[in-house]
Amino acid sequence: MLQAETFIRVRYGETDQMGFLYYGYYALYYEVARAELIRELGYPYSDMEKDGTVMPVVNMQAKYLRPARYDELIRVQTTIKELHSHPFITFHHKFLMPPMNYFIRRR
Amino acid sequence: MLQAETFIRVRYGETDQMGFLYYGYYALYYEVARAELIRELGYPYSDMEKDGTVMPVVNMQAKYLRPARYDELIRVQTTIKELHSHPFITFHHKFLMPPMNYFIRRR
Amino acid sequence: MLQAETFIRVRYGETDQMGFLYYGYYALYYEVARAELIRELGYPYSDMEKDGTVMPVVNMQAKYLRPARYDELIRVQTTIKELHSHPFITFHHKFLMPPMNYFIRRR
Amino acid sequence: MLQAETFIRVRYGETDQMGFLYYGYYALYYEVARAELIRELGYPYSDMEKDGTVMPVVNMQAKYLRPARYDELIRVQTTIKELHSHPFITFHHKFLMPPMNYFIRRR
Repeated sequence: MLQAETFIRVRYGETDQMGFLYYGYYALYYEVARAELIRELGYPYSDMEKDGTVMPVVNMQAKYLRPARYDELIRVQTTIKELHSHPFITFHHKFLMPPMNYFIRRR
Repeated sequence: MLQAETFIRVRYGETDQMGFLYYGYYALYYEVARAELIRELGYPYSDMEKDGTVMPVVNMQAKYLRPARYDELIRVQTTIKELHSHPFITFHHKFLMPPMNYFIRRR
Repeated sequence: MLQAETFIRVRYGETDQMGFLYYGYYALYYEVARAELIRELGYPYSDMEKDGTVMPVVNMQAKYLRPARYDELIRVQTTIKELHSHPFITFHHKFLMPPMNYFIRRR
Repeated sequence: MLQAETFIRVRYGETDQMGFLYYGYYALYYEVARAELIRELGYPYSDMEKDGTVMPVVNMQAKYLRPARYDELIRVQTTIKELHSHPFITFHHKFLMPPMNYFIRRR
């Protein structure tokens, strides 16, 4: 099991008129969190692409359990639970908003 | 069953350096497609919100079967298959890219 | 003088918690408006790029005179006032929000 | 003169098919940089808004001198050169990309 933690602050432009982080922009946070986990493995995704390997997303599932608000520093825990022989990797993200006891899951 | 069709053109800013519509921006297209289906029912979502009803997304699933490219006019077919007594509505979106015989599903 | 008109509807994800179209996303509308003007000249920008010509933006100026709101259909008037011998083109955009008598300029 | 420095890493979703940070997404970086400068003054913008003060952007000027690339850590220097008696504040941003000797200005 591989795990990494990233902190992302909600930008004003990422909120919507409901006053929350827009559901569509979570995908950008997943991307950042994936990239940070991969960076910690010692081979940044930006280098991988230069070397000819791309990792397009083919599947996304998100459950929104609690809204995130402007300027909140979100703690994103990213996990790769298992590495398969086949070419797909599943990243699991858990979003912890202040006060950090609720979360959003994504597989 | 309720169904509506919307056409959305891929913007340059929505592509990424892979040369495709970024996986995260599909959610904006889902939103547009939902709004258009709701508008056709005669009660635009913007009016609903003014009247005090909000429809936050609590769940999203996407399968990316084929990439979309800059300036392509995507045909988005949106369907509500059943209306439940409980307060959740599921929108299904099918993306048809030119030449329109491949698609992306979302529930 | 070349002129074109485009209609763009404000998406929910483009609003911010102030309840207006976020100032940063106007640039996406400028892009759409530029592309539509170029398309009307008979040589879409997507084709230009395939043929090896790119048009990166090197300068942007925006004045925000009145906010735009969710679901409003913005009328964007785009003008090229003069074509120079040098390689720069200036697009002027005027945003007309309903009821269309106020505007936002951009050079 | 007030000054602050912020580091922002370019996200994949913020690049476009030219392979660079999309010109429209710089505004999000300006917003982050403004917020960080204001935070350092001891009164975060998120608190200001809760207290009833909003700071909508009424004017933006950007010069793009050099492109930014995916995963680059941009150093954004933000300056308020003078505080006027009138209610407008001008933020100046300088973007330093690696190797940090070129820049983008914005007034």
